[in-house]
Amino acid sequence: MNEISDSLKQRFATIADLDAASAVLSWDQQTHMPEGGLAARAEQLSTLSRISHDMLVSEETGALLEETGNPDPISVEGAFLRVARREYERAARLPSRLVGELSRTRSLAQGAWEKARANSDWELFAPHLERMVALQREAAEHLGYEEHPYDALLDAYEPGMRKSQLDELFARLREELVPTVKKLPREATGEEPFRGSFDEGKQEEFSTRVITDFGYDWSRGRQDRVTHPFCTSLGGPADVRITTRFDPTWFSYHFFATLHEAGHALYEQGVDPAYTRTPLAGGASLGVHESQSRLWENIVGRSREFWNHYQPLFGKTFPQAAGASAEDLYRAANVAYPSEIRTEADELTYNLHILIRYEIETALLEGDLEVSGLPGVWNEKTKSYLGFTPRSDARGVLQDVHWAMGLIGYFPTYTLGNVLSAQIFEAAESAHPEIREQISEGRFETLLGWLRENIHRHGRRYEPRELIERATGRPMESGPYVSYLKRKYGEIYDL
Amino acid sequence: MNEISDSLKQRFATIADLDAASAVLSWDQQTHMPEGGLAARAEQLSTLSRISHDMLVSEETGALLEETGNPDPISVEGAFLRVARREYERAARLPSRLVGELSRTRSLAQGAWEKARANSDWELFAPHLERMVALQREAAEHLGYEEHPYDALLDAYEPGMRKSQLDELFARLREELVPTVKKLPREATGEEPFRGSFDEGKQEEFSTRVITDFGYDWSRGRQDRVTHPFCTSLGGPADVRITTRFDPTWFSYHFFATLHEAGHALYEQGVDPAYTRTPLAGGASLGVHESQSRLWENIVGRSREFWNHYQPLFGKTFPQAAGASAEDLYRAANVAYPSEIRTEADELTYNLHILIRYEIETALLEGDLEVSGLPGVWNEKTKSYLGFTPRSDARGVLQDVHWAMGLIGYFPTYTLGNVLSAQIFEAAESAHPEIREQISEGRFETLLGWLRENIHRHGRRYEPRELIERATGRPMESGPYVSYLKRKYGEIYDL
Repeated sequence: MNEISDSLKQRFATIADLDAASAVLSWDQQTHMPEGGLAARAEQLSTLSRISHDMLVSEETGALLEETGNPDPISVEGAFLRVARREYERAARLPSRLVGELSRTRSLAQGAWEKARANSDWELFAPHLERMVALQREAAEHLGYEEHPYDALLDAYEPGMRKSQLDELFARLREELVPTVKKLPREATGEEPFRGSFDEGKQEEFSTRVITDFGYDWSRGRQDRVTHPFCTSLGGPADVRITTRFDPTWFSYHFFATLHEAGHALYEQGVDPAYTRTPLAGGASLGVHESQSRLWENIVGRSREFWNHYQPLFGKTFPQAAGASAEDLYRAANVAYPSEIRTEADELTYNLHILIRYEIETALLEGDLEVSGLPGVWNEKTKSYLGFTPRSDARGVLQDVHWAMGLIGYFPTYTLGNVLSAQIFEAAESAHPEIREQISEGRFETLLGWLRENIHRHGRRYEPRELIERATGRPMESGPYVSYLKRKYGEIYDL
Repeated sequence: MNEISDSLKQRFATIADLDAASAVLSWDQQTHMPEGGLAARAEQLSTLSRISHDMLVSEETGALLEETGNPDPISVEGAFLRVARREYERAARLPSRLVGELSRTRSLAQGAWEKARANSDWELFAPHLERMVALQREAAEHLGYEEHPYDALLDAYEPGMRKSQLDELFARLREELVPTVKKLPREATGEEPFRGSFDEGKQEEFSTRVITDFGYDWSRGRQDRVTHPFCTSLGGPADVRITTRFDPTWFSYHFFATLHEAGHALYEQGVDPAYTRTPLAGGASLGVHESQSRLWENIVGRSREFWNHYQPLFGKTFPQAAGASAEDLYRAANVAYPSEIRTEADELTYNLHILIRYEIETALLEGDLEVSGLPGVWNEKTKSYLGFTPRSDARGVLQDVHWAMGLIGYFPTYTLGNVLSAQIFEAAESAHPEIREQISEGRFETLLGWLRENIHRHGRRYEPRELIERATGRPMESGPYVSYLKRKYGEIYDL
């Protein structure tokens, strides 16, 4: 990278180190930290992020970015500058007063949300959300946008994506999926092989075998137990850790969460090591990241081929389920029915959960919806799209922490991930038609190799839109995903 | 702390947060980090320590320290300033060129030392040590001293201590201990109850029970397995973690290391929480710290009263040793004989290992000893003080990493810890004569309470000399320690 000065490289390397240190501290907090450490840890994290932020928005950084020329945008240097300038501008455009208010509001809102959810009491949370929406609106104005204020927020998670594209995408999904979901059974059927008693050590043994087969590299990672599983990169591709959870009575709870996080981790472990400590490290966007987790969790891990291969091992590991056929396991992995909690929803209904949130948060930001009316609207939409009314606000409008954290514009990336996972898998399969057969032999190296080559290694070098076009030969399209869902669930549930 | 400005407090709080973050990263590196993470972690640690160091030695810090008045040195404000100024001055006096050279030399010397020890080849390490000694001499001149350049280095670990005091101390120990050690058996005798087969889970269960009885607070700590055990404070007294090791054939290897680290941890957990994120956090000096680890490991954990109480639990936990009496266990815990490796040496011979290192490192610094002559001198001194010649340089002059790390002036703090442990325990016992009896009942709250009140809570508020005088009513003295050793081992070995 000759056109990028050493000072600029060093500056972003220092910022990357500080952010990696924060990631280590957060990982520790969620996995191993004794309860007593919480207050001190909050101070440490706040100090690290303040120093990192100050360094990013400093005049020196601005001047260094200014004085760099304009290398070919398609070159690594050009990509470095594109991402570095984007990060600098997004951070520098927010007045420090607003950054401080956002941080305070986030902290208060999270505490209030926890209480509100525990008591299923919307009123406890409502004033904090009102404040947060107002601040997010203000942030959007500072950040700037061409079409819609929502674009300014969305851009933090999905660079280059517009609300207008999402409107189109969600309209299609609503049209295709709502009628399909209506035909589903009202409760879980066929999940018996995954319910019962599952020794935790055995669960871990089985899932470890699977993700090792996928290609997760344990010499550059580890797995720990947490309440809410996540994947985190603590030093570029060389230290990518996953976390998981267990329910001794429900196999899916641990297993699919583990495949999901392993999917994220395969992406991070596959990024070009040369990008470590540069703005090009990590994934292209949240949506692209989610496409990798969903691909391994759902398209691979919930496929018939997958269970054809792993059925014998499953029966051997869990003798009580030895009588379940590969087909039984495939069906247990694909139980679909309208349920209350997004994070536990199946592939088919999942996107309707996101649709509800997307429609609400865009209306909130536009001022078309008052915070006070939110529980009512939530329940109406749930009734209309999923066919039931949540039993309580705790299991409805209060179930997710995202809005309390100020994450408006974040939810759609889950659905983008789903949509992209099908498009990307289709492209891989069309390049290597043997992939599906290999899965039924427990072999994943062709699939992983294609993903490495076409997605993973590039890190943030390309904008998501360009990355997808290069990898699949077309812009993002919902067709493959809708076909995948309708084909799969149409067959299973005879819809 | 009214006389200390908010800016100054904030500055040292930020430095403390950065250093705590480094401590978390180091802890993770030694306990959980996958091997692949090493290179990235080194960059992160180097960035954090550079930012912390730059902030400490910055002109702003100097100016803030300058403009603060001179509060009563005995007040908390006065102590804050004393320690803050000391840290600032020690850091600011070293030219950044020298800091960089020390860091590079340290890194090269450690690599060379590892190879040299593995091959027992002194020549591989000698040129690096020569360079390190020259740099340390230079550092001592920059740091300044009144009597001897060694004082400037020692002061980093033991504020206020002088070589002249150490000379006197070590002369006394040499005179008293060398003849005693000569009368010891030449090999381990009576250790049978601690040798054999010890299930690691059971070892951990037993030691956990003991250190919980001591008063280690698990809600503010945890224990992990490492190669070289240590204790680390990651957020003041609220997160103090210990680490341990296991040998399935040797009980003492795990057990006494655990008591030792728990002793350090009891100190850190007992520091006034108000000192968190100030220069007053942590222990008064390495010697005082070591006095706490040694007190719990040796004076308590190797006492007859201790084994009188724990013998039944020991027999129940390790049925193969159920026949060993309390007296058998007491003797097994106090096996003493001249051995090669410092870290595995018993209480009685341990200080002679330190004496050898002290005599050598002071002579090196003075220029009275050439690096090339070191193995010869080492072996002569070992022969003269311990009565044998090491089988190899790997098990002799190359056994410790300290000199490779530039830690000259560090070794004596181990002996200071031993000496102080006896003086402090004597003072606690004279205030509470029931302490010994309580130990035989497995009760430690009176002892811990006295230590908390007189040592722990003060953190770095007092200089070590003053802390000891306040706690014990007298300056540091070797009498109690020498008597303790001669009484104990005189009886066991009929010397």
